Amino acid sequence: MSAKELHTALERLCKERPDLRFLSDNEEMTPYLREWRDAYRGEAAAVALPSSVEDVAALVKLARECEGVHLVPQGGNTGLVGGQIAFDSERAITVSMARMNRILEIDPVNNTLTCEAGALLADVQAAADDAGRLFPLSLASQGSCRIGGVLSTNAGGCEVLRYGCAGDLLLGVEAILADGSVWDGMRPLRKDNTGYDLKRLFIGAEGTLGIITRAVLRLFPKPRSTVCAFVGIASPSAGLSLLQEAEEMSGGEVTAFELMPRIAVDMADRYTPAVRIPLESDVPWYVLLEISSSREQKDAVEMMENILARAFDKNLVLDGAVANSKAQEESFWLIRESIPESQKRDGGSIKHDVSVSVSRVPEFIERATEASEKALAGVRVVAFGHVGDGNIHFNVSQPVEMERAAFMLESERFHRIVYDITLDMGGSISAEHGIGIAKLEENARHKSDTEQNLMRALKRALDPNGIFNPGKLID
Amino acid sequence: MSAKELHTALERLCKERPDLRFLSDNEEMTPYLREWRDAYRGEAAAVALPSSVEDVAALVKLARECEGVHLVPQGGNTGLVGGQIAFDSERAITVSMARMNRILEIDPVNNTLTCEAGALLADVQAAADDAGRLFPLSLASQGSCRIGGVLSTNAGGCEVLRYGCAGDLLLGVEAILADGSVWDGMRPLRKDNTGYDLKRLFIGAEGTLGIITRAVLRLFPKPRSTVCAFVGIASPSAGLSLLQEAEEMSGGEVTAFELMPRIAVDMADRYTPAVRIPLESDVPWYVLLEISSSREQKDAVEMMENILARAFDKNLVLDGAVANSKAQEESFWLIRESIPESQKRDGGSIKHDVSVSVSRVPEFIERATEASEKALAGVRVVAFGHVGDGNIHFNVSQPVEMERAAFMLESERFHRIVYDITLDMGGSISAEHGIGIAKLEENARHKSDTEQNLMRALKRALDPNGIFNPGKLID
Repeated sequence: MSAKELHTALERLCKERPDLRFLSDNEEMTPYLREWRDAYRGEAAAVALPSSVEDVAALVKLARECEGVHLVPQGGNTGLVGGQIAFDSERAITVSMARMNRILEIDPVNNTLTCEAGALLADVQAAADDAGRLFPLSLASQGSCRIGGVLSTNAGGCEVLRYGCAGDLLLGVEAILADGSVWDGMRPLRKDNTGYDLKRLFIGAEGTLGIITRAVLRLFPKPRSTVCAFVGIASPSAGLSLLQEAEEMSGGEVTAFELMPRIAVDMADRYTPAVRIPLESDVPWYVLLEISSSREQKDAVEMMENILARAFDKNLVLDGAVANSKAQEESFWLIRESIPESQKRDGGSIKHDVSVSVSRVPEFIERATEASEKALAGVRVVAFGHVGDGNIHFNVSQPVEMERAAFMLESERFHRIVYDITLDMGGSISAEHGIGIAKLEENARHKSDTEQNLMRALKRALDPNGIFNPGKLID
Repeated sequence: MSAKELHTALERLCKERPDLRFLSDNEEMTPYLREWRDAYRGEAAAVALPSSVEDVAALVKLARECEGVHLVPQGGNTGLVGGQIAFDSERAITVSMARMNRILEIDPVNNTLTCEAGALLADVQAAADDAGRLFPLSLASQGSCRIGGVLSTNAGGCEVLRYGCAGDLLLGVEAILADGSVWDGMRPLRKDNTGYDLKRLFIGAEGTLGIITRAVLRLFPKPRSTVCAFVGIASPSAGLSLLQEAEEMSGGEVTAFELMPRIAVDMADRYTPAVRIPLESDVPWYVLLEISSSREQKDAVEMMENILARAFDKNLVLDGAVANSKAQEESFWLIRESIPESQKRDGGSIKHDVSVSVSRVPEFIERATEASEKALAGVRVVAFGHVGDGNIHFNVSQPVEMERAAFMLESERFHRIVYDITLDMGGSISAEHGIGIAKLEENARHKSDTEQNLMRALKRALDPNGIFNPGKLID
């Protein structure tokens, strides 16, 4: 089937379903086909914009009937591995969930929120907040990413340590299956043992097994207080000991533990004008420590001060500042959040989103740093991230004098070095960004045959004709 | 193949694998074939007792090679729905994991514990405790149930409100698949987005998709203090308001919220000599409220007292006692834990393990009670349980004057009444006990065709020849 024939079929469908819309003009389609950093430029025969579950089901039925036509589900188009991008100008239909963006219901007593798959993460957070509850998933892209995408990539972020990844926040889901049927798994229950855990099939599946259309999400009681500290430490290993102290003294109230090397903080300071570093000491590593407490604010601040005092006595902390206002708390977070953009402005960077056991983070950073520095003189390792859950953004910045383009040609070599150490330590080569097309080959290279066969068996069982996002996640 | 031929094949296998053992004598097999309440009496050609992953893989390969032979995995034989019981004296092999019971590793920094599938839940709890950590799953059967069974049934218990069900505590798993291959998914990671969430396939699957052989479990920091209260309230609806108050005032530190009607507490008082009711008032409902806090013990007690005082002012609580010692705490829990056995001693009881939204628990209890009392004059509804997560054990005790056997003949009729109301309210007919054979027909009756087809597609994809626990969970 040609793109033109597909357009005719879509036009016919839109007559039957007047609320369904589609785009076929290249300029109009561009925002849905261009990855936001411009790392991928896609192509599609059309971008469909369904307004209802029935619209999505009708699109699936159309794809079934048209040989070779496939659907690429898309949320906010904020993914980093190309999973949401279509690459076939004749037979791909991007299915944007952007119009299905309603919050449908909040039940504060049951601690649940029901929404459509296209709801913005920020809207879900705000709706929960208005009802006196917390939806704890927090991402840099929260103003534009959408719940369906967040679930399909099992997004992580900064509060995973306490609340888990996106999939852990899902209670019920509705999805359109490959035969066009609607699976209604929208049960708002905390306990339901009446069969296989079907909702989990769609978590981290990157839209390859079905299209999520609605979800029931878990909400939490709001913590009574939040307190942040920005501290200087001697090493990642001192950081881990500090984490233990903080968990023990707070009784498990740590909600974020972000490790940053000096070079990352210096970059943030240099390239992001609003950044203010609250410490004057000359330290090699920093930690942003956040505690969300059931205590009153002043008691939580006192607890944080006690934690730092004890850690100081034990030589775990070299210097530290506790935020004394919301504004200062935000200013601490700004340092952490400015790192990716600041690093980009400093030149070429080869990135790795990996995880290992929390206990092995120092060993990983040491081994991967040594191997990277040995591989190319002058590279500057910028290893930072959510160390409280073992997730390190192990980025390698170019030597200062080198050409950016020449350095980026070394990407494969550095990936090899970093991933081999990660795998040797029982870690994951994609902690929170997923596989998409970016890590497809790498993933196939190291996953056991048994595991790949198991994944293929699932794909065949749920999508025998390959209409959902082919070529992503699993080949 | 006859049982005798199967014994010959097993004997041959045991020569190759000297650590593998099997039983074929009826008397020796009885503990593995009789359900503990004597609700099911099973039959098997043999009970295999593997000592290693390789033993289990060899048994799967044997089953593949012998037409019609199938495996029934078994943990501690504590299940309530017959999932662990074999029913074929010629071709069933019960695979008891009891000998594979080792705790393999604890990593307190990563907050993980690695064990074999046959490890006792109580041993896992104790090992975590010794390492200064908490494994929060807590069940009446914890002295005899085993981790593989706990995961395969996604067991719940009293702390689900805060920590989730068994499946939520699993990070990594190893399982033997239907082709005899070993899937090593033993990653001790909190973030790993490199494919489908395969470990979740085995959660609540009741051994129908593979046999779990090892697991990596999540541990938690220990709370600094625990405080319990036993309170009298006017109604389930007052109970829900009390739960809200407690969650809000404690900042989300409620770990158990068990609702009990007067009749259940009276039965516990009457049939269990050690039970002492700490309240003298004449109240229709009781709640056991537990808070696990990051505060010091005295501050947690003070907080609990404040919660009760405020609830009293708002007329949510009629009377209450806060435990002032570990012994008193245990005495409060004894009341709750004595209910099932006491109810049994009081005569026939038709049981339902259902869940609905937490917010709809009062409505459910009211509707189901009214319908039950209308169905048969003199029945006494005993509705109690983990109301903090929407799970109600809705048991109907016989009219005092009726014959037990005559009453039990009414089981199907009461199931129909209670399940219809549950399903009408969007609830689950098996909150924490699973399906097994006990609820197989009931589950098939109400699950949508789409959902049943999805389950069958998974079963076919992972176990095409039906060697794992056939006839359980899904037909």
